[in-house]
Amino acid sequence: MKTAVLGYGTVGQGVYRMLCSARGLEPGPVLVREGKKKEPFQVTSLEEILADADVKAVVEVMGGVKPAFTYASRVLESGRHFVTANKALVAARGLELSEIARRTGAGFLFSAACGGGVPLLHNISLAVESDSLRSVSGILNGTTNYMLHAMQTRGWDYARALAEAQALGYAEADPTADVSGLDAARKITLACAVAWSRLPDRGIECEGIESFSAGDVADLQSRSLTCRLIAAGKPAGRTVSAYVEPTVFSPGAPECSVADNYNMARYEGANSGPLVFIGQGAGRFPTASAVLRDLSCIVQGQRAMLSADCAAVEADNSREQHPYYVRCAAEAAQALPVKALLANGPTVRLLTEAISVHAMHTLAQKIRKDGGEIFFAGMKEA
Amino acid sequence: MKTAVLGYGTVGQGVYRMLCSARGLEPGPVLVREGKKKEPFQVTSLEEILADADVKAVVEVMGGVKPAFTYASRVLESGRHFVTANKALVAARGLELSEIARRTGAGFLFSAACGGGVPLLHNISLAVESDSLRSVSGILNGTTNYMLHAMQTRGWDYARALAEAQALGYAEADPTADVSGLDAARKITLACAVAWSRLPDRGIECEGIESFSAGDVADLQSRSLTCRLIAAGKPAGRTVSAYVEPTVFSPGAPECSVADNYNMARYEGANSGPLVFIGQGAGRFPTASAVLRDLSCIVQGQRAMLSADCAAVEADNSREQHPYYVRCAAEAAQALPVKALLANGPTVRLLTEAISVHAMHTLAQKIRKDGGEIFFAGMKEA
Repeated sequence: MKTAVLGYGTVGQGVYRMLCSARGLEPGPVLVREGKKKEPFQVTSLEEILADADVKAVVEVMGGVKPAFTYASRVLESGRHFVTANKALVAARGLELSEIARRTGAGFLFSAACGGGVPLLHNISLAVESDSLRSVSGILNGTTNYMLHAMQTRGWDYARALAEAQALGYAEADPTADVSGLDAARKITLACAVAWSRLPDRGIECEGIESFSAGDVADLQSRSLTCRLIAAGKPAGRTVSAYVEPTVFSPGAPECSVADNYNMARYEGANSGPLVFIGQGAGRFPTASAVLRDLSCIVQGQRAMLSADCAAVEADNSREQHPYYVRCAAEAAQALPVKALLANGPTVRLLTEAISVHAMHTLAQKIRKDGGEIFFAGMKEA
Repeated sequence: MKTAVLGYGTVGQGVYRMLCSARGLEPGPVLVREGKKKEPFQVTSLEEILADADVKAVVEVMGGVKPAFTYASRVLESGRHFVTANKALVAARGLELSEIARRTGAGFLFSAACGGGVPLLHNISLAVESDSLRSVSGILNGTTNYMLHAMQTRGWDYARALAEAQALGYAEADPTADVSGLDAARKITLACAVAWSRLPDRGIECEGIESFSAGDVADLQSRSLTCRLIAAGKPAGRTVSAYVEPTVFSPGAPECSVADNYNMARYEGANSGPLVFIGQGAGRFPTASAVLRDLSCIVQGQRAMLSADCAAVEADNSREQHPYYVRCAAEAAQALPVKALLANGPTVRLLTEAISVHAMHTLAQKIRKDGGEIFFAGMKEA
């Protein structure tokens, strides 16, 4: 299957190289920007790709919603298969693309958009054919995992962890999308869409790692707890709960063994039981390998990850409950359902009773709006 | 796709129930033994199944090579898809079945035969379309993992761990196939066949957990090491290395977080990097869920896990090297390349230099033949 590639950055180059040796696939033209053409196989307009009747599939690894959406819809309208690593595109316009693909019979897969090389979406999409999933969660952002892991094993503070992540190319010059949890939120949006045909494009509560301090590291370590940034989703009536927040784990949880910039995802099937996946969540070849697996699935006959009845919903985190570990000012703590006070003083550390994700995130926002500081992390049983 | 089931034991009942609600699948007749028919959907001869032209696929969950092979070949000769959870069958006769399936265009998949509910073979078979795998390994026997985990966390000795595993139904009355490593060896045979088109049906070095004692537990714990039974495979020239042996891991390795009767598998792709999978390796619904995923893959268009050029080979473990942790008599230790002596006396504990798997297993056999005792475990970096 001759496959064109839109974009020739880090991942695009990996995809092109893998296409040269994959079974049943061959590389087609590669779209680069006007003035960037350096190789004979590169072209500078989508028209040149669509004019090649031998091109049966197109991979998009440019990123961004525009012009990726325009390109994607033209590819799918032409009946060609479309595989993307672009989470922003699928989170924002995936349902429209899915509808075009269904109408024209084209394949539309996007494994690489969630978890990079970790085969999460593929395995979810296969599982839901015969099983129903109770929950999906994971460490879906490698940059923040690298930072959290370094802070908890090398004694670095937040600023150094961020600087090193930037030096290694894991974090962008503007790291906001990673450290705020937005990147992980987009990924859990996609996982919910594949798992439950509900795409939560609003209402996702999102707490990143910006409040995590060296003091928190020391206190958690004294309690043998490990902090990771977790994105989680679950069915909630006619919608889903979906949120991102720091979460602390007891020793023995697989989350604790996820080092450096690795990703991890888990889902629980009613029949399969819990399944855990760990791997590289980003990088040229891990991400390209996820794209190539999607192409192999299309060759074998798969066409869709989103079902025809998948709908956009507002996430509802008001019923999803668990205890929290919290550091905040003593005064602010009065609004919390305290179960155990761990450290007293002007700043307190405490464990709460189980409260809803929505209530906890709302409270934290209020505390910050009033000028206060807070770090909070969900607590999960090992 | 109407799907018949051969066998109505633990897994067969799970498969039948899942077929009733899976997308694109429906249950067909279920084969039970003469005199065991209790339900209207049950039949007592394969002829009744083959006479039903609507049956397009057959699942085999009887176990054993006879008469499963005869049934499998007749199903495949009739052009029907064949999905099995039977590792003994595929290890012994899989290449013949693969050849019939290829000739008649039928699908032949066997995910459930290795790792139970852990989607290892499926993901390997997808990965090798575009990536080359450097190694495969894992905890592929839940019974022994339950025993090892209990010995290392609950202070049970070997006899109690085995008795509890039997009481829970994890171990058979005759537990030899599990504790000797034979079950795990058959599974790594299948993984090698899917990963490298080499099916090692002889030459697999296999050390189980029968020599692991409470004294070993105490010594390993004092060194923060955790013992698991690992099956491993790797390309080795024109054949593969393939072996089963206890292996000790440092804290932080995902293997340490695999509790109770869970399974874990990992492979390293040249492009994907390392990928880890953890889940239930046995049980009614986890195993059935693997069978159902294979059926969904067939509906989508997949036909084979074994490539046409897959060949039986003798495993070669003479070049695969790593250090070992060893307990044995002081005298016997003189034959070992000692790197560090950990405990002295009539019985010694030591670490070896890197030596080949073949050399270590051969030496252990010789020590036992001479009436001596030995426990040895491979050492892996975290």
